Amino acid sequence: MGGPRRVGEFEVIRRFFAPLAAAAPGALGLADDAAVLEVEAGRRLVVTTDTVVAGGHFPHQASPETVAAKMLRVNLSDLAAMGAEAFAYTLSVALPEDVDDDWLERFSAALAGEQDTFRVTLIGGDTVATPGPLTLTVCALGTVAEGRELRRSAARPGDGIYVSGTIGDAALGLLALGGELDELSADHRQALIERYHRPRPRMELGARLAGVAHGATDISDGLVADLGHVCEASGVGARLEAGRVPLSAAGRAALDAAPERMATVLTGGDDYEILFTAPTGSNDAVERLSGELDLPLTAVGRISTGPGGVAVIDERGAEMVLERGGFSHF
Amino acid sequence: MGGPRRVGEFEVIRRFFAPLAAAAPGALGLADDAAVLEVEAGRRLVVTTDTVVAGGHFPHQASPETVAAKMLRVNLSDLAAMGAEAFAYTLSVALPEDVDDDWLERFSAALAGEQDTFRVTLIGGDTVATPGPLTLTVCALGTVAEGRELRRSAARPGDGIYVSGTIGDAALGLLALGGELDELSADHRQALIERYHRPRPRMELGARLAGVAHGATDISDGLVADLGHVCEASGVGARLEAGRVPLSAAGRAALDAAPERMATVLTGGDDYEILFTAPTGSNDAVERLSGELDLPLTAVGRISTGPGGVAVIDERGAEMVLERGGFSHF
Repeated sequence: MGGPRRVGEFEVIRRFFAPLAAAAPGALGLADDAAVLEVEAGRRLVVTTDTVVAGGHFPHQASPETVAAKMLRVNLSDLAAMGAEAFAYTLSVALPEDVDDDWLERFSAALAGEQDTFRVTLIGGDTVATPGPLTLTVCALGTVAEGRELRRSAARPGDGIYVSGTIGDAALGLLALGGELDELSADHRQALIERYHRPRPRMELGARLAGVAHGATDISDGLVADLGHVCEASGVGARLEAGRVPLSAAGRAALDAAPERMATVLTGGDDYEILFTAPTGSNDAVERLSGELDLPLTAVGRISTGPGGVAVIDERGAEMVLERGGFSHF
Repeated sequence: MGGPRRVGEFEVIRRFFAPLAAAAPGALGLADDAAVLEVEAGRRLVVTTDTVVAGGHFPHQASPETVAAKMLRVNLSDLAAMGAEAFAYTLSVALPEDVDDDWLERFSAALAGEQDTFRVTLIGGDTVATPGPLTLTVCALGTVAEGRELRRSAARPGDGIYVSGTIGDAALGLLALGGELDELSADHRQALIERYHRPRPRMELGARLAGVAHGATDISDGLVADLGHVCEASGVGARLEAGRVPLSAAGRAALDAAPERMATVLTGGDDYEILFTAPTGSNDAVERLSGELDLPLTAVGRISTGPGGVAVIDERGAEMVLERGGFSHF
C-alpha cells in the first residue's frame, strides 16, 4: 500500500521518528527489535496506553500539531494521575493514504516540541497502513518511588475532594468546534477550543501529591464519571457541589449565557485535570501546594461512606439529575 | 458509538479484559490510570510495540483465536530477538461496529490461553470504537539481564549466519490462503496456513543466545530483508546460500511443484523465526543448543566485510536476482 506521496515504512521511521529517539541510547535508534531501558533501583515502572482515532478523539481536519499534542498528553496525564514521572513512550501509527510526507514532517516536529516540554523520549514504535481513519496508540512509561504511587482506590470517607485547574473547558470547546457558543467572544471560544485540543497534563502536581492525596485520577471521561470511578474503586460515595466547581473566564461566560450548560461542565470529558481526595485537615497543605505550583486546587465536595455513587448538589442544596454520567469515546 | 450488540467500554474492560490481568497485582485490575510494575535489580526493561490491522496483517474473516495469537506473538517475537524474557503486555483495541460480545468472548478466552503458553499477563489497555478495520496494538514488556541483550548491530565479518526452524512457510501459507498451491495435499496447505496465522516466537532460543550469538533479529519482513537490516545496523555484508535455507516438508513440496517459489521463501514475511550470527567455531555450541531446545538451527551463510548488502547465492553458485527484498505491511 502507500501512494507516491509517502515514502516506505523504514524510510518513515528513519526520517520522521528516529530523530525523536536520538536522546535515548536504549531506543537503539529505533533500528532494533525492541528498546532496552533501565529502571532505577527503588523505583517502580508505571505503564499506560491510550489510542486516539481521527473523528472520535480529534476532528478529521485537526492539524498534525494538534494530533501530536493530544495523543501524547492524554497518556502523560494518566502517568501524572499515578504520581509518576514520565520518561519514555512508544508510538504506533496506522496511517491512511492521505497522510503525506508534509503531514509527517509537521507531526514529528510537533512531537519534538512535546518531548522538550514534557522531558520524554520516543523509544519504539510501529508504522502501518490503514484504509480506516488515522489511529495512533501511545504507550507511555514513567517511574514512581516505591510505595508513592497514587491510586483511584485510596479515597476514604470524610476526605475532601479536590480538582486542579478549571473544569468543563474542553467539553465546551468541543461545542464551540461544533459551531455552538457563538454568543461568546472569539477569544473565549478560542480558549475553550485550545483546552480541548491541547490538554495540560498535570505532571508536577501528580509528582507532588504523594503524602497529601488519598485517591487520585485524571479527569478524562468527565468530572462526575471519573469521581464515580474513584468511588467504585474505593467502595465509597461522594457528594459533589456543583457551585464550587472551578470555571475559567470563558467557561463562566458560557454558563452565564446558558446555565443549563452546567451539565456539560460536570459530565463532559477531556479536561485532563487531576481529581484527588485528601483527609480532613489537608486544606493548608493543598493550599500551599497550589501556591508552589501556581495552579488552582479547589475543594469541590466530600467523600461519604458508600457505596452510593456520586450525588451532585446544586447551589440551592438540591440534588441534580444528570442525563449522563460522563463522556465515552467508545 | 457502539450498537446494541456490544456493551460499553467499561463493561468490555471489566468482562473481557480485566480477568486477563488478575494474575498481575500491579495491573490494579485495569481499574486505575496505569499499571505499576517492578523491574528486578540487575535486569533491564525491554519494550516493543506492534500494530496489526485486519485486511493487512490478518484476513478480515480471521477467527478471534487467530487474531489473538498473531497479535501477541509478533510482539513476543521481538522480545525473543532481544534475548528478553516476556512478562507483561498492554493491549489497545480499536473495534469496528461488527465486533460483538461473542467475538470479544472468544478473543479474550484465546488470549487467556496465549498468556498461559507464554507466561505473560495483560497489565493495561484501551478500548475505542473505529469506523475503520479492527486495529490492535500490543506493547510487550520483557526483561533481560544487564549486558545480555541481543542486538541487530553486533554481526561481525566472518560470522556464520543461522536461522531457527524452517523458512518461508508463512509466506507460502499466505499464498495458500489466497487460493494458490492447490497442487499440495490438504495437510501441507493447512500446515503452511497455520504457520502464517500462528507464529511461534522463539522465546527459549532468544533467552539462550546470549554468549553464543553476535547479531540477532526476528524474521518478520522476510529472510533477505531482515538479514539486510542486520547488515545495515552492523555495517557488514552477507552471503546467503539459498540451497541451505531450511524448509518444512510442506515448503519442500511447494518448491518441488514450482521451484520459482524459492523467491517467496527468501523474501516472504511473517516467519517469526530467529536469525542470528555467531563467530567461526560456534557450530558445536549452536548444535548443542539446537539439541537442547529440540529446534533446528541451520547455518545458511556468512557475514562479509561490508557494507555490501545481501548477496543471495543459488545452488549452482550464481547470484540470484530477487525482485523485492522483503515484505512490508506498509
